[in-house]
Amino acid sequence: MSHPFDLTLYLVTDPRQTAARGLSETVEQAVAGGATIVQLRDPDAKGRALAEQARALLTLLKPHNIPLIINDRVDVAAAVGAQGVHLGQDDLAPAVARAILGREAIVGLSIGSVEELAASDLGPVDYVGCGPVNATGTKGDAGGAIGVAGLNDLRARIQLPMVAIGGLKGEDVQGVMEAGADGIAVVSALCAAPDVAAAARALKASVLEFRRP
Amino acid sequence: MSHPFDLTLYLVTDPRQTAARGLSETVEQAVAGGATIVQLRDPDAKGRALAEQARALLTLLKPHNIPLIINDRVDVAAAVGAQGVHLGQDDLAPAVARAILGREAIVGLSIGSVEELAASDLGPVDYVGCGPVNATGTKGDAGGAIGVAGLNDLRARIQLPMVAIGGLKGEDVQGVMEAGADGIAVVSALCAAPDVAAAARALKASVLEFRRP
Repeated sequence: MSHPFDLTLYLVTDPRQTAARGLSETVEQAVAGGATIVQLRDPDAKGRALAEQARALLTLLKPHNIPLIINDRVDVAAAVGAQGVHLGQDDLAPAVARAILGREAIVGLSIGSVEELAASDLGPVDYVGCGPVNATGTKGDAGGAIGVAGLNDLRARIQLPMVAIGGLKGEDVQGVMEAGADGIAVVSALCAAPDVAAAARALKASVLEFRRP
Repeated sequence: MSHPFDLTLYLVTDPRQTAARGLSETVEQAVAGGATIVQLRDPDAKGRALAEQARALLTLLKPHNIPLIINDRVDVAAAVGAQGVHLGQDDLAPAVARAILGREAIVGLSIGSVEELAASDLGPVDYVGCGPVNATGTKGDAGGAIGVAGLNDLRARIQLPMVAIGGLKGEDVQGVMEAGADGIAVVSALCAAPDVAAAARALKASVLEFRRP
């Protein structure tokens, strides 16, 4: 049994987009607005710096009982006692993360196509992140946009909790939720918002409005 | 008690320098020439690719009883069952690696100055890599060259096994060994050699000749 988690509004951080406001400040405002889970993503950070960032976020998130997910670096998640990891298709395999982090860890996996799904062992996986729904400039290594149609294809084949990701804005929420996502993951829509908390509140209300019963 | 290891001739791989010959072929030839320990270093590789490279090297090295050390990625070392990790000052702390990998793992740490030494917890460390002795183009993030004098300074303050690193060629071996190194770590001197095995044999003979009794 992994830690409980709620994919409704999943914040993924970006070092460039949080630079001006600050990482902790951005996360704090997102949580104030209703973010339900946070992923620390900083692919260029060295291990020690990433661990320091993670520790700061854990301190901030713990009182809210919101899980912190580390992108890619299973060792950093283990080092700081984060609640989980999110793995791309090029990262270590989910089974490896499970073996290192133990039964309670939340293990997420990115799936961008039916082919990637077929090549993935979902046994050790707790949730999937599907996309990019729209083209996005944030992740240089993300595959092509799959659209709501692609999300529908994946939803029909995957029983696990699913969060939609990839350039999602308020106007996209209805479509991805009607495709059966359990929530939305966003980078720019929160990190680059003028008012992070207000943006979070609006997105969350929309997710809850359109979520399949 | 960590796995036994021998720092006499320590090969550090470089993806660009081994590209033409192949990683496994380069390592195989270095081992044929007498390399005693191998570090897989590929800072730009994603976790899954690095793990695949590591598994190939483990298969190759096991019959020779030569330990494989993974640069930076503690999780990859855990994933593949490598014998150890080598950590820079910006990587996860040695205590973290020890906690994740257990008592048998070999944990190495780079030390480039007396200041870095003072800031380091050597308790969980099995050996130190000191340098760069000479300026080197291989590691963009390495500090300034410390020379044989710098190596002497560190040797006087560190009881652990020490390998010298940083642009070392045959002509440097006498100096660094007389400064008290237990061996030399090389990238280019092996990876870029026309005949890797011959280069390894020559370097190893020189290390053994000049090693302090």
